[in-house]
Amino acid sequence: VDGARALAAAPQATLRLVPPPGPEPGAAHRAAVVDLGSNSWRLVMFDYVPGAWWKRTDELCEPIRIAAGMAKSGRLDKAAIRRGVATLDVFSRLCRIAGLRREDVDVVATSAIRDAANADALAAFRAAAPGLDIQVASAEEEAIHGYHAAVNSTTLRDGTVVDLGGGSMQLVAVRRRRPAALGSWPLGAVRVTERLLPGAGPVSRKQLARVRAEVRRELEDAPWLGKTGGRLVGVGGGVRTLAVAAQRAHDMGAAGVQGFVLTPALLDELVETLAALPALQRGTVPGIKPARADIILASAVVLQTVVELAGFDGLEVTQAGLREGVFFANRLLAGGEPLVGDVRSASVRNLAAQYDTDLEHVEHVAGLALQMRDSLLASGDATLDPQERELLWAAAMLHDLGTTIDFRDHHKHSRYLILNAGLPGFDPRELALIALIAGYHRKGMPHLDEFESLMRPGDLGLVRRCAVILRLAEHLERGNDRCVRGAVLKGDPAGIYLELEVDGNAALARWSVERYGEDEAFRRAFGRPLVVASSA
Amino acid sequence: VDGARALAAAPQATLRLVPPPGPEPGAAHRAAVVDLGSNSWRLVMFDYVPGAWWKRTDELCEPIRIAAGMAKSGRLDKAAIRRGVATLDVFSRLCRIAGLRREDVDVVATSAIRDAANADALAAFRAAAPGLDIQVASAEEEAIHGYHAAVNSTTLRDGTVVDLGGGSMQLVAVRRRRPAALGSWPLGAVRVTERLLPGAGPVSRKQLARVRAEVRRELEDAPWLGKTGGRLVGVGGGVRTLAVAAQRAHDMGAAGVQGFVLTPALLDELVETLAALPALQRGTVPGIKPARADIILASAVVLQTVVELAGFDGLEVTQAGLREGVFFANRLLAGGEPLVGDVRSASVRNLAAQYDTDLEHVEHVAGLALQMRDSLLASGDATLDPQERELLWAAAMLHDLGTTIDFRDHHKHSRYLILNAGLPGFDPRELALIALIAGYHRKGMPHLDEFESLMRPGDLGLVRRCAVILRLAEHLERGNDRCVRGAVLKGDPAGIYLELEVDGNAALARWSVERYGEDEAFRRAFGRPLVVASSA
Repeated sequence: VDGARALAAAPQATLRLVPPPGPEPGAAHRAAVVDLGSNSWRLVMFDYVPGAWWKRTDELCEPIRIAAGMAKSGRLDKAAIRRGVATLDVFSRLCRIAGLRREDVDVVATSAIRDAANADALAAFRAAAPGLDIQVASAEEEAIHGYHAAVNSTTLRDGTVVDLGGGSMQLVAVRRRRPAALGSWPLGAVRVTERLLPGAGPVSRKQLARVRAEVRRELEDAPWLGKTGGRLVGVGGGVRTLAVAAQRAHDMGAAGVQGFVLTPALLDELVETLAALPALQRGTVPGIKPARADIILASAVVLQTVVELAGFDGLEVTQAGLREGVFFANRLLAGGEPLVGDVRSASVRNLAAQYDTDLEHVEHVAGLALQMRDSLLASGDATLDPQERELLWAAAMLHDLGTTIDFRDHHKHSRYLILNAGLPGFDPRELALIALIAGYHRKGMPHLDEFESLMRPGDLGLVRRCAVILRLAEHLERGNDRCVRGAVLKGDPAGIYLELEVDGNAALARWSVERYGEDEAFRRAFGRPLVVASSA
Repeated sequence: VDGARALAAAPQATLRLVPPPGPEPGAAHRAAVVDLGSNSWRLVMFDYVPGAWWKRTDELCEPIRIAAGMAKSGRLDKAAIRRGVATLDVFSRLCRIAGLRREDVDVVATSAIRDAANADALAAFRAAAPGLDIQVASAEEEAIHGYHAAVNSTTLRDGTVVDLGGGSMQLVAVRRRRPAALGSWPLGAVRVTERLLPGAGPVSRKQLARVRAEVRRELEDAPWLGKTGGRLVGVGGGVRTLAVAAQRAHDMGAAGVQGFVLTPALLDELVETLAALPALQRGTVPGIKPARADIILASAVVLQTVVELAGFDGLEVTQAGLREGVFFANRLLAGGEPLVGDVRSASVRNLAAQYDTDLEHVEHVAGLALQMRDSLLASGDATLDPQERELLWAAAMLHDLGTTIDFRDHHKHSRYLILNAGLPGFDPRELALIALIAGYHRKGMPHLDEFESLMRPGDLGLVRRCAVILRLAEHLERGNDRCVRGAVLKGDPAGIYLELEVDGNAALARWSVERYGEDEAFRRAFGRPLVVASSA
């Protein structure tokens, strides 16, 4: 089976994905990252098997605003230190209860603590959490954490990463997936708000212009940023929040924000909407949480200016942040270069591994599906879109996830699980396409359903073609016994002909596929009936 | 903790639910039941640990119509035998591939094969599947299989079970959950259609009256059926199909058909709708599959007549059928009386066990939630509905299911999993209430969402009260360390006061619950704020 072979030879590079450790929780490691940011502090726990799979398993978040007042005084104020001490007590308690040792937890303090003039604050924090090893990241280290998050959760090879926090903003130029230049500037949302947008009312054009001028002035020492444009990947809570708000405003949120692109026009619209509102009312804009209401405008203006300044195509959102960056580099990929080999296939395999997937079965189904698709294309069928090959593969690998919920309707459950777990590296449209293909892999006439607004012309045809090819592959492997070793489709104007290469008795596969031969969805996808050759 | 103690003492009776075997698939057994019915043949596979949990893991269905033509000839015709032989070949192949031995598969032939004048048909079937041990069920055995399905998937104690197949209909009178009287009549949907409703066009009132008269005449030899009314539980594909059609017509399908009651009015409406259509067009009625189009009217009229004859309150649907009945009696509950002790709690525990639920944690959360509810009631708070105690318990046991998908938004995922797995013993309204309570256990203002049409007055208040009490319990057990051993709520007109019984350091629980104190949902649920006592 060529398809299966081609698949087996897919690049695996740094992250070698082995079969799931199976449901032996003992085999999984647990680690945590604590992010002591300028706006919020977070504790995230991860379960993982190095090089195999990972998953977030717990999270605590405190919108602590530790940098409050720093713009004026340069110091962490007393109330902030008290909040920090109490929060660290709670975080370290959860780590202890979860059985995490000191060396299992990476605690990273960023801009506010790094820059505070009062070093006693750090001493107070360390005293409050003797079980945690609080490390203050340098500006360069902070930038690299964001870079690790971005480059392992998107397909970025050449472009730029922006990490906008509460205290500082980091930019990293990326060439062939490696950091080529970087810098950090005091342009975090809390800091910019306190310095340049302190009022409670709506913000005037003049005030906005002042912020933009300040961003431009600060970035003068990054000549490498240039005017080259290209891809910009954004990291941080402000970026995520703005993406959700833009999606809500345009009804585009059905497949999440991962990979969503905030175009310059969307950023302009967000700045305009937010600036027209008093600070606290910005939290009533759908998608924006009240705790971020006062600083979200600063995030929007700073990001808008960065995009404009370098002429980027837009701002591509990733949900991974500093915490994931630290986790990837220090845990999941420890010991090698901290780069996932191929982000898209790694996401698919990570998700498959989290459920008790029968990898032999799904890889065989994927191989048959790709072989049928490729042979149909080779037989001169021009209706196939080259891009759909990878989406078909991903859907085939994940088509059975839903059996974990119930065998009945497992196609629908697979759709839900794919959508809700997400697949970093794919954008929302692609994620929705994969979910739809898997969701229609057993029956029904495929439609675009709630994802209409994310789709491009031709996507309905893509879903239909991939869904029916996947159905066919699933029927051929109905017995989960690999007795259909190969399957070829050839088209002519009257029909599409299926030829099988069989090893052993394929009665079950034939029974399945023949009953399927009358499927209306096949005819709608290819405009011709399916004809099953009786040979072999 | 009284609540927790009360819980531990809950009746467990026959089905002792032990902690899940954990994710060791080796510990699970696999069995299959093959149902050679008069209308369709089905193979269902089950994974299970006796007395602990079970789950359907595969299913093949062939709408074989083996009884076609029998009403006239009394014999299985040649084409039907050929279809049967081919289907058995496929079924036995799947069993072999799945590693099932002969003794792992119960093969039950019912009415059509039992009644066929040509015994050579059975010999042909046995020859086609030497690996399967085909048993022909007597009418009594067939009735008992349906009874086992009904009584282990509903809360029926006293009432009647009707199992309407393609060939025959069985009725079983149930007293204190045990069979008290039973009978079988040749009133299956295929048989009645062939004998009394053979035309392709719409059906006249006169023809319907003839069917009703025939049902009444047949049932004259069941004087025990009487006119007593009461509960009637319905088993079989016809029952399920009619329920789906009624739900579709009234937009009541958001929580499935399990436990849905087809009232006499709904049955009348279905008969009227279906009789007005030509036979094949009945398959275009939403919820009715084309393969059943020609026989569904017979099912509707026969069931309508049974309900009317004995004055039943309605027809309560269960999705469990002969296959589950056989599986329960011969596998899951083998060796004891084949009765699940308490169907509702067994459903909840079965679902919890299928996911890698931390039982210590969820049982503690459930105990705290019930203790808070009970103490608030004891303090004179009259807003609490007695029925909601069990729903709160069920939601507490299942609140964390969703973490299997992602920690983020796991409340929403729990909702999806509860709804889609279902909880036999609860009706659709109750299932939706449990899903809603679990779905709002972390945040948001609870609403009835897509379940509005299933709800009764006061249900919104019930969801809000239970959801916020569950939130509180979850916060108190945030560290998963049982350090909050007890929690008591007391109300007065100014507020509701929370008092804790603490063992060890409860800083994490306090931090969680204090940040929650401002929750608007709590105030909406109880009309007063929550006050956390600083003592203990």
